[in-house]
Amino acid sequence: MDDLQAVSWLNGKVRLLDQTKLPEELVLLEISDHRHIVAAIKNLAVRGAPAIGIAAAFGVVLAVWQADESDRTDFLRNANRAIDELKATRPTAKNLFWALEKMRHVMSKNLNRPLRQVKEAMLNEARAILQDDIDRCRKIGEIGQELLPIRCTVLTHCNAGALATGGHGTALGIVRSAIAKGKKVRVFVDETRPLLQGARLTTFELAEDNIDVTLITDTAAAWAMKRGFIDVVVVGADRIARNGDVANKIGTYGLSILAKEHKIPFVVAAPLSSFDPDLATGADIPIEERDGDEVRRIGSLQIAPEDVPVFNPAFDVTPHNLISAIVCEKGIARFPTEEKLAQWLK
Amino acid sequence: MDDLQAVSWLNGKVRLLDQTKLPEELVLLEISDHRHIVAAIKNLAVRGAPAIGIAAAFGVVLAVWQADESDRTDFLRNANRAIDELKATRPTAKNLFWALEKMRHVMSKNLNRPLRQVKEAMLNEARAILQDDIDRCRKIGEIGQELLPIRCTVLTHCNAGALATGGHGTALGIVRSAIAKGKKVRVFVDETRPLLQGARLTTFELAEDNIDVTLITDTAAAWAMKRGFIDVVVVGADRIARNGDVANKIGTYGLSILAKEHKIPFVVAAPLSSFDPDLATGADIPIEERDGDEVRRIGSLQIAPEDVPVFNPAFDVTPHNLISAIVCEKGIARFPTEEKLAQWLK
Repeated sequence: MDDLQAVSWLNGKVRLLDQTKLPEELVLLEISDHRHIVAAIKNLAVRGAPAIGIAAAFGVVLAVWQADESDRTDFLRNANRAIDELKATRPTAKNLFWALEKMRHVMSKNLNRPLRQVKEAMLNEARAILQDDIDRCRKIGEIGQELLPIRCTVLTHCNAGALATGGHGTALGIVRSAIAKGKKVRVFVDETRPLLQGARLTTFELAEDNIDVTLITDTAAAWAMKRGFIDVVVVGADRIARNGDVANKIGTYGLSILAKEHKIPFVVAAPLSSFDPDLATGADIPIEERDGDEVRRIGSLQIAPEDVPVFNPAFDVTPHNLISAIVCEKGIARFPTEEKLAQWLK
Repeated sequence: MDDLQAVSWLNGKVRLLDQTKLPEELVLLEISDHRHIVAAIKNLAVRGAPAIGIAAAFGVVLAVWQADESDRTDFLRNANRAIDELKATRPTAKNLFWALEKMRHVMSKNLNRPLRQVKEAMLNEARAILQDDIDRCRKIGEIGQELLPIRCTVLTHCNAGALATGGHGTALGIVRSAIAKGKKVRVFVDETRPLLQGARLTTFELAEDNIDVTLITDTAAAWAMKRGFIDVVVVGADRIARNGDVANKIGTYGLSILAKEHKIPFVVAAPLSSFDPDLATGADIPIEERDGDEVRRIGSLQIAPEDVPVFNPAFDVTPHNLISAIVCEKGIARFPTEEKLAQWLK
């Protein structure tokens, strides 16, 4: 998977792997206008909380990369406008806002230097955000793999893998690191309607790495648990509140209830960039609702009456009391509480 | 919906509404060969436990309808072979076996009469099975509607409606009867992957009747409950064991756990033809597993890598202790147990 990076920087352009086209087509987008990054985040060509943050950071670089190096006012105006546009793409994932704040900060800090150097500093920051995310994922994998038995089957939801991050993945990073340690790990994947990130992306990236993967519909998760097929559930996160409540892809909350019913550990893996110290509980996390056509249509196929009303939340919130452990690059919080997470947020 | 019957008899042919084509196309199949009924049950052109039983009954009629009325041995051989072929189509729904046994019985009982009269008796029996199912559904609706508050939102799964029965429906029969009584009932429908009976069929038939319907992905059910949108869950059944364990469309078991977590009543509606007095518990119910391509593909669209392994059970079993009430044409069993159901099975 190392050459299948979700986001990378290549000679003044941002290269995105178009995730709306996988697994049928492997399309690489080469983007030089930050507004195309805005569009790519909105239409989910790039998705996954950490990857969105990385793409947005490079989007800010694109917005200033060709700027006139003698007009400081114009430079600043363009950069700030781009940051605002990128910020408005999607409301739930914390990493987007976190990365954009880092970009704004590095720009402000360097503004008294020649603009060429400001550009370089901003590119370096975006590159650091990318590399840093890969490092965090490897740490999360290393730490989190302790939670997996020597032989086990993991159920995961959506895609919290290399494609959702700089590389390696969060939930799938734990799987990869466990396998690297010699553990025998099989993965069951929920297809994850409406946008089928499990069916399209997670199966694809695990198969690329020769990891034993079985696809199920979201409706089959409870029965797979009942049948004894699942030893542990591992998912990613889009935003984590101070008390450990977790916003993640729609369906995650239901899975956490099913896991409790079947006494199966429920593990969340996310870098600290997904944590939001400003929010006391999950009730404060804004939940994006997306167009009903995502449910009424699959690709060009109409699967429901054209005008039927749809409720289509993109995320839900899993309360901390249904979570067995949260893993980040700093360690593991078992039965997470505000007190346990506070040590990481200092 | 009255003219949109799933199964009917028309001048020596069986008319099926092809449910694989809805809601995009309204295709009526006119079938005169029982082997086409076998195929239609297997490929789900006709589906829903009661409707499968009705279609199979008419399939037996087709197998003898053109038979030479002078050759009793041949008549019997053809009828019995057709019954065996129809029996082998799908393993889970009880109504199929129930209806075929009724057809075999009426044939045996009349075999000493002229074959023309045997044919007529068999047609009359199939017609009675159809009419009887409509009557049972109306009774179930009438009785079950008491369980719905005056204003409420019902969540249903798959299609337990007119399209799954002779008419009126079981779960949706309760909704229709409640509305006929003047209650304000809204319906949320799980799309019901893999075959999307909720998205394709339930939304369609409710919209035809101007019933307020909202479509959600299966992944959104828990969140809709958490948000307080759902007052009661009502589903159908494919087979009910003596102790009240219920086999129904995959995803039903998970819903029952989610309903318990949110303290939402979970109601099962089914005619007595779905009850199996031979099975002590749900553990004995055979669960059909279907082709993985039902998950890997939607129509002509590939949504997962071609060769990815799939676990695709068509049904699951909800244990009786997760069921608030079972409704049949004889009454309501609250918190069903073997003792409570036994009165109906005498």
